[in-house]
Parts: sequence; C-alpha cells; structure tokens
Amino acid sequence: MSTPIRRLLLGRPLPTWRAAHERLPKVLALPVFASDAMSSNAYATEEILRILILAGIGALDRVLPLTLAIVVLLAIVVTSYRQTIFAYPSGGGAYIVAKDNLGTLPGLTAASALLIDYVLTVSVSIAAGVSAINSAYPETFPYRVDMCVVAIVIVMLANLRGVRESGFLFAFPSYAFIASFIVMISVGAVKAMTGTLQPAPVEPVRAVHPLTLFLVLRAFSGGCVALTGTEAISNGIPAFRPPESKNAAATLVWMALVLGTFFIGISSLAHYLGVAPSESEAETVVSQIARSIFGSNWFYYIIQYATAAILILAANTSFADFPRLSSILARDRFMPRQFANVGDRLAFSNGIIALAGLAIILIIVFGGEVHALIPLYAVGVFLSFTLSQYGMVVHTRRRNGRGWVISAVGGTATGVVMLVLAVTKFTSGAYIVVILIPSLVLLLLKINSHYRILAEQLRLAPEEPTPLPELKNTVLVLVPGIHKGVLPAIQYAKSLSPDCRAVYIEIDPADTALVEERWEKWGQDVPLVVLESPYRSLVQPILTYLEEVKEERAKHIVTVVIPEFVPVKFWHKILHNQSGIMLKFALLFRRDIIVANIRYYLEK
Amino acid sequence: MSTPIRRLLLGRPLPTWRAAHERLPKVLALPVFASDAMSSNAYATEEILRILILAGIGALDRVLPLTLAIVVLLAIVVTSYRQTIFAYPSGGGAYIVAKDNLGTLPGLTAASALLIDYVLTVSVSIAAGVSAINSAYPETFPYRVDMCVVAIVIVMLANLRGVRESGFLFAFPSYAFIASFIVMISVGAVKAMTGTLQPAPVEPVRAVHPLTLFLVLRAFSGGCVALTGTEAISNGIPAFRPPESKNAAATLVWMALVLGTFFIGISSLAHYLGVAPSESEAETVVSQIARSIFGSNWFYYIIQYATAAILILAANTSFADFPRLSSILARDRFMPRQFANVGDRLAFSNGIIALAGLAIILIIVFGGEVHALIPLYAVGVFLSFTLSQYGMVVHTRRRNGRGWVISAVGGTATGVVMLVLAVTKFTSGAYIVVILIPSLVLLLLKINSHYRILAEQLRLAPEEPTPLPELKNTVLVLVPGIHKGVLPAIQYAKSLSPDCRAVYIEIDPADTALVEERWEKWGQDVPLVVLESPYRSLVQPILTYLEEVKEERAKHIVTVVIPEFVPVKFWHKILHNQSGIMLKFALLFRRDIIVANIRYYLEK
Repeated sequence: MSTPIRRLLLGRPLPTWRAAHERLPKVLALPVFASDAMSSNAYATEEILRILILAGIGALDRVLPLTLAIVVLLAIVVTSYRQTIFAYPSGGGAYIVAKDNLGTLPGLTAASALLIDYVLTVSVSIAAGVSAINSAYPETFPYRVDMCVVAIVIVMLANLRGVRESGFLFAFPSYAFIASFIVMISVGAVKAMTGTLQPAPVEPVRAVHPLTLFLVLRAFSGGCVALTGTEAISNGIPAFRPPESKNAAATLVWMALVLGTFFIGISSLAHYLGVAPSESEAETVVSQIARSIFGSNWFYYIIQYATAAILILAANTSFADFPRLSSILARDRFMPRQFANVGDRLAFSNGIIALAGLAIILIIVFGGEVHALIPLYAVGVFLSFTLSQYGMVVHTRRRNGRGWVISAVGGTATGVVMLVLAVTKFTSGAYIVVILIPSLVLLLLKINSHYRILAEQLRLAPEEPTPLPELKNTVLVLVPGIHKGVLPAIQYAKSLSPDCRAVYIEIDPADTALVEERWEKWGQDVPLVVLESPYRSLVQPILTYLEEVKEERAKHIVTVVIPEFVPVKFWHKILHNQSGIMLKFALLFRRDIIVANIRYYLEK
Repeated sequence: MSTPIRRLLLGRPLPTWRAAHERLPKVLALPVFASDAMSSNAYATEEILRILILAGIGALDRVLPLTLAIVVLLAIVVTSYRQTIFAYPSGGGAYIVAKDNLGTLPGLTAASALLIDYVLTVSVSIAAGVSAINSAYPETFPYRVDMCVVAIVIVMLANLRGVRESGFLFAFPSYAFIASFIVMISVGAVKAMTGTLQPAPVEPVRAVHPLTLFLVLRAFSGGCVALTGTEAISNGIPAFRPPESKNAAATLVWMALVLGTFFIGISSLAHYLGVAPSESEAETVVSQIARSIFGSNWFYYIIQYATAAILILAANTSFADFPRLSSILARDRFMPRQFANVGDRLAFSNGIIALAGLAIILIIVFGGEVHALIPLYAVGVFLSFTLSQYGMVVHTRRRNGRGWVISAVGGTATGVVMLVLAVTKFTSGAYIVVILIPSLVLLLLKINSHYRILAEQLRLAPEEPTPLPELKNTVLVLVPGIHKGVLPAIQYAKSLSPDCRAVYIEIDPADTALVEERWEKWGQDVPLVVLESPYRSLVQPILTYLEEVKEERAKHIVTVVIPEFVPVKFWHKILHNQSGIMLKFALLFRRDIIVANIRYYLEK
C-alpha cells in the first residue's frame, strides 16, 4: 500500500517500545473479553426455535428445558476453565494447553479448530449485528451482504491501527448492551406478571417433522452456540491487573452469570410471547421480543443498536485472537513466518488481513445469513474446549494436583456435545468443518516440515572451514555499441574483477568493423568479444557464450553487467529496444550468474 | 510468445543470409504487386452506385461516364508513375520521392498518409472479401466481423512466417480472378447483345437527394477507390528480374489495362442490368451481376471465391508494404527502432503485428462494413500520389530531364481529386483522416527529435579523456542473520571490493548479541554494521544508511548485495519473508546504487 494512503487509514508507525501491555481493571476487562460470549444472546435462543418450529408451534415449549440444559453446560465449562486460568497465568489458549500436555497433534488440532472458529466468529457476529439493524430498518434488508463487508473492513482497519489498547472504547457499548437487556428482561417479566404483556396472536405453522429425540438434539446443538467465546478470558490473563489469575477468574464468573441470566431471560420471554422465528430471517427473535414489550419506541431502537454494537465488538475479539494465535503458530514454525511480523502499528497485520479476507468470503458465499453459518460454527469451539480440558486433566495429574475430576467432567461433557453437534448438524454444514480441521492440521504439519528442512540446510556446522576460500569472479559487460551510455558500465565491470571482457552481439556484420575501431579508442583496455548472431537473436548467443565461459572458468562465478538507459519520461522507454529486460529474464533462472544493471540517466 | 507455440505457428528461425531477394518474372510479379489495384474492382462500381441511388433509380445512368472519367485518371497516374519507376530503380515509394525532392515535411506527410492507407487497405480488402463470401452464403452474414478478424490473423501469421517469398502462391488466385472476370464480362456482353440477358425488374427507389453536382462528385470520389494500390509496383522494383525498371513499367501498364477494362466492364453490366446496391449490404453488386448472368450455378461460386481470394491477397500487399515503410522510417529515426528489427523469419515482425492490430480495431469499430470504411480510404492515397508526383517534377527538372510536365499534370489531377474527395466525403468519415495525418506527422517528428537528442547525449566527443579514472566501489551485503545461505553473498561481496561491509537490521534487539557473536566466527572478517529499526521496517533503515554511506564516500558507486533463497518448489516462496524483493523495489529508482542478488539454491 502506498505510504500516504496507509498513513491516512492507519496512522503513523509506532516504535517497538510502545508495545508494553496496558493492564485492565476487571470493570474494563469484562467488556474487552466477554463481548463475544455475551453477544451470543443475540442469536442463541433463535437457533433453538428455528429447529423446534419444524415440529410445529407446539414444539416451541421445549425451548426452556433446552436453555436450562445449555446453561448447566456453561456452568460446567466455566468451572473447568477457572482451573486453566490459575494453571496458565501467562495465557492458556487451547493450543498451548493441548500441545503442552497432550502433544503436538492434539495441539495443532485445537489450533486448527480455533483458527476456523475465529473466522466464523467474525462472519456470524457481523452477520447477526447487521441482522439487528435490518430488523429495525427492514428497508436495509436487501443490502445486508454489503453492510457486512463494510463492517468487516472497518473493524479490520481499526485493528490494523491497533484499536485493542483502548478498554474504554469497549466499555460503553458493552455496558449499554448489558443495561438495555436487563431493562428489557425486567420490564418484560413485570409486564408478564401484571398481565399487561399480551402474547402475539399465534399463526398456525404446519409441522414438517415429528418431534423426535434427534430433532430435540439438533435444537440443543443450535443453542450451544451460546458457549462460543467463553474461552476468551483464559487467553488474555496477562492483560488483567494483578493478581491476574484471581481477577480473570472473577471476571469469568461474572461473564457466565450475565450470559446465563440473559439466555434464560430471553428464552422465557420468547416462550411466553409465543415468538416464532420469521421465515425470511428479516426480523430477529430478539427484535420481535423487544417490539412486543416496548412497541417501536425509542427504547426498542436502543436495544437493536446495543445488540449490533456488542456483536461488532465480538467480531473484534477474533481480530485480536486470530492474529495472536497465528503469530504463536508462526513462531513455532507451523504457519508462514509473515504471520509473526509486527506491522507499522504494532499489530500482527498479516493475520488481521487474512482473517478479514476469509470472513468476507464466508459472508459472500453464505449470503450473510446467520442461520446458514451457525452449523459450521460450534463444532470447532467444542473440539477445542474438549482438548483443552483433557490437557488440563493431564497437567493437574502430573503435578499431583486436585481438581482434575472437574476438568475430566467438563472435557467429557463438551466432548459428548461436540459429537452431538457434528452428527446432528453434519448435513447442514458441519461436514465442511469436519473435513477442514484435519486438512488444516496437515497443512500446518507440512509447513513445519518445510521450515525444519530449511533450517537443517542452512545450519552452520562448527566444523565448517573458515575463512572461506577467495571467490573468483569473471565479469562480462554487454555492449550494444560504443557510446557515452556504456562507459559507466565498462568502468564498473573493470572495478569488479581483473577478469573482465566486453561482449558485442553482431546483428549486422556491416557494423562490426566500426564498433571494433571505436572500441580501440574507448574500450578502456577491456577485451572485446564479438558474437555472431545468424538468427538475429540478442539472447541466444549470450546464453551459448556463457556456457563456454563457465566451462573455461569452472570455479568462477560470472557477473553479467548490463548497461541500461533511463529516459527522462517514462513513455520514452517504448522508443528503445527492450533487449536489456529480455536478457535479464533469460538469465533470471540460470545458476551462478549474477546480473547487475548499470543505469545511465539521460538528462533530456 | 513461448518458443514451442511460436515454432508451431511460425516455423524455425531463418538465418540472415537467407534474406537475399527472390527475383520475379513479370508473369509472377503481376499477381504479387497488382492484386491490390485489381481487387478494387470488387467494390469500386458499387461505391459509385451507392451514392447515385440517393437521387433515385434514374441517376444510376451516370455510372458509365463516371467510370470512364476515373479510367482516364488512372491512365494519367500510370503514365506519371512509369517515370518514377525509371527514376528510382531501387524503389520509389512516395515517402522517398517526396522526402528526396520536396523535403522532410512533405516526405513525412506522404509517409503518414501511406501508413494510414495500408491499415485501411487491410480493413477494406478483408471486409470486401468477406462480403463476397457473405453474398454467396447469406447465412454467414451475421458472423462477418468474426470472419474478418480470423482472416486478418491468418494473413498476419502467414506474413510472420515470411510468405512473401512465394510468388507462385499468389499466381493461382490472381489469374483465377482475372480469368473468371474475363469470362463473366464476355458472357455478359454476348448475352446482352443476343438479348438473352434480362435486366432485373426495377424496384422503384425513392430519391432522397436531388442529383446535384455535389452528389455526382461524391459518386466520383467513391469510385476513385479503384486507383488505390496503383503505386505498389513503384515500391517493389528491386524484386523484378533485370532489366528491373523496364519489366516493372511493363507490368504497371498491364495492371492498368486489366484494372481499367474490368472496371468499365462491370460498370457497363451493372448499368445494363439496372443493378442497385442492396440496402442491407448483404449482397455485393458483383455478386448480383454474376447471379444475373449465370444464375446460382458453380461458376457463380467460382467468381465469388476468386473475388474473396484476390481481396485477401490485396490485404497481404499491405502486410509487405506497411512493415517495409515502418522499417525505413525507423531507420530514419521517425518511428520506434523496434520496427526496424528483423524477426525470426526475416520479416519485420513488429510492423506486421501492429498493422494487424490496427486493422482489426478498424474492422470492429466499423462493424466490418466496407461502405463505412471507404470514406476514410482514398484521401490518403491521393495525397501520397500528389506529393510523389510533385516530387518527380522537382526531381526531373533538377536533372534537366523531360517529362516533368507529365508528372505535373498527374500531380495536379490527383491533387484536385484529393480536394474533391476530402470535401465530398468530409462528413462521412474523411475528417478522421484529415485530422489523423497531421497528428501522425507530429508524432513522427516528436519521435525523431527524441532520437536526435538521445544521440547527442550519447555521442563520444574525440576530446573525451581516455582511459577513464578508476571507479571506486563500496559494497554493502545485507545479512538477515548468519547461516549457510548468506555465506556465498559475503564471499561475493568481498570479491567485488576491499571496501565492503555487512549490514544487519535489528528488528528484535534480543537477537543482536547472538548475531554479533556468530559473526565473529563466520563473518569472514567483513565488518558488521547493525542498524536499529525502531519501527520494524526493513527498508527504511537501509535507505537512511545508504544516504550516510554516499555522503561518506562521495565519489564511490555503491553496490548492494542481497542474498536470496531459491526454494525447490515455487509455492514455497510464500513461506519466506519477501523482504529481498521489497528492498529491490525500493532501490530500483535510486541513482548510483547497483543491486546484485546472490541466490542460494535450496536442495530439499
């Protein structure tokens, strides 16, 4: 990217010493790390209802027990992750915990699952955020894909600038979301109890599927998306104020309480109001609930905006996590090393750009529909939960610690759920992830093996002789004729090596005598070699001659000096034969031949 | 173009000594040089009728006197050109004659007119040839543009292969054309005299324009297209068997006789049969005449094929003339010197490709319609006729020769006709050429001035000191670290100059101590410069350091040696930081800095 545009979008570069971490108090850490988890409330209930409705309006009753089951699962996972926080105070992401305790392959499996999920977090959160806006302004519905893309690009640019430093930026929308949902749920509950909240008239929906156990499990799987993002705090412990682990654990519990309460509240209201998900996806369940309670007044709009805002923050979480995980993988030589490069503004720019690109592709392929993306989503999250917790079982037992039972229960619970997810959502999209995770693991291993082979080849063994023998250099300077423009090239060639000769390609034999005569005077005592070119090619005779020189001077390196004009105006180039460029290309893939262009700058 | 495809399409390259000219006897020279002129019969009569019909069916009567007037003009031009043939036995194109005798500006004007006309010859001839096929097979009419493009590409490839050597190739279609037209005109005449040829039923056409003098002059202008190509023989005299000029002059007269006879014959038949040009352009006048005489029998098809064939040969003439004129202009430094390059097969490849490209653009822009292209055509031809003949007036008078009156009469006649053409066809397309010719002259002059300025700058004055002072070279070798891959670069740098240093960019200060320690052992006694990079840029610190070095070593040239890995598989490149490439680009436009890449070939 050219510098001025880059400066405008990203700001001035930051020096490396500015990288020291900002430490967050709990009240700011909650919005930074919990936005992803809390924001799931915007779609989790709806995902349950969308499956249940297949068995008709009557089946919607099941939303409450399913919600409670998921909240119990949440409690188990959170209890288990509290242990990870204390065991890995410097940050215990699933990759690190699984790799440390279970080995490389489980570690890479967890990493692949996470990388894929970070991409999905961006796509799903942004799509859901745009859905909240679409619900408030139905006329924007046709532009949802464009809105998603623009939102992702904005979040990407913000992250390239290095937005993560400002906890304050996150606090306002997060607390606005929490406050507005508390108001909505409370007002809804009071109105329901005082009988002033009227359930919507029930439109009959024909059942297309019997209410089997499989369908109920599918609905449960849909709701499990509520747990995504729960692991974020365990990744970010060093960002908390000391005592880090204690503060992080407390924040985790707070997050779980908010998430669980809201989830139960929304599912209860949806149940009480008999809300059914709209078929066109034009209006979200949360929007329908809010409209039933408040009508279309100003507070309804506040809820929609707060929902959209926290969902964008949720996407932002991935913009911190994906590049960080990529950089760790790159440092461990499982991903291209460019992902470990720190950009102008101290962000892992390549990871940020890759994430945005992949998320935009997903949005476009799936038409920005939250419901279509969800089946790809939770499998990876639960896979990394499971690997991380079994890692913790090994970790705790090795240290003869207690509490490994909690990790084992948590790991088993999430493992079972993962299988349920994979099976019940397989045909509706989970198969993509089931194929993708092992493929990604293979790719990471392949990259690693390339780097290992490379390092082996480049390793300087202590027995390597030093100093190395002197290198001999044979220099050829190509002369298209003899004029001022070639003199610097001759001078330069002479300076490089005593073994230096000029090469002239004879296209028209009539010119040769004159060139030789002028060479006598101006050739600076460099011997001139005239190469015949019966087919008028400029490149072929040189390639042939180079072979000869290399046979003659077996251990020499050969440097080819090519003089080149630089005209004052760029378009003047078309008035010159481009033989220098052609030659450069022809020599590009030849071994042990070094090309140096000597430019002659025209002044007029 | 990659070599195997090139070989397949163009054949093996030919050595320069094969360039000797094939000498043609008159019987083969006629088809080679006269196809352009003779082929005008395919559309000249039609161009007259197309204008006359605007004044109604009755006005078509005027076709005969107009044809006779044009034939008289032809006789004048041919008489005049016979003198040029004797005066310029080595080839007297309008550019050469005008430049020699009238000066550079008239010469370039003639050259510009000719270049434009060669392009138009290709477009018009190919379009007319395709029209002949379309007339025989009306179902091909919708594909006419594609057919034209394919035909041009075929002729182009044939010329890149070097088709012009084979006079025999030309003889068959040319004599088939001559023979079939003789048969058609004779049978038509006999049938008309014996009363067995019935004029077509006249469909009433409403006059949209009164039969003014202006309209008659417009019709005359249309018919003047018959004279295009007349100059071809005077360009190609060296290709004739000796005595060259005498044989060329005889061939010119034969050509004029054939052209004139056919023109009168076709116009007479069109007049007798009351043929009116079809409005949709779907059937040509010649096709209508042939169909009236023969019905749709086999001989009718022979006429159509012969017409198409000679028109393609006519286009082929331009593929010899345009590149030749371009190469002469390039040698005189009025066109980019690439036009003087002789290709693999001894043809001026760049001129051939340029001509085909321009002709295809014209075909596409004008939808392959002959009638739409014609107004652009003849102005340039008559301009070059005029300049050439006035050039001959000066030439002959300077030598006190006789016959200048003939040239003066010819020049005046064609000059008057040119003005008539420019005025009467101005709004229907001639204005394009009227703008284009002076623009092209300006461009040629601008190119020439560039080359003159260039030559001045590059000229080695005899007082230039020799030998030149020795050049001092400061060499910087960039080291990303110290491993096997950088050793060859250090060796190479050491060989170039005693003033040599290694440069290391410190991205992470933690690594520096280790690099310095390893440098002690492996650095081959080259001093190591460590550059801080607080903003983690690889390029900026080097650019800054280069400025320092250039201040410190004012008169030195600076060579930057960049080590580069070459992985075994191309896609492995994405696994490496591309800092070498970035640096190369950053240094590309810096003066007095020479970049040399030292490659290290990985083996695994």
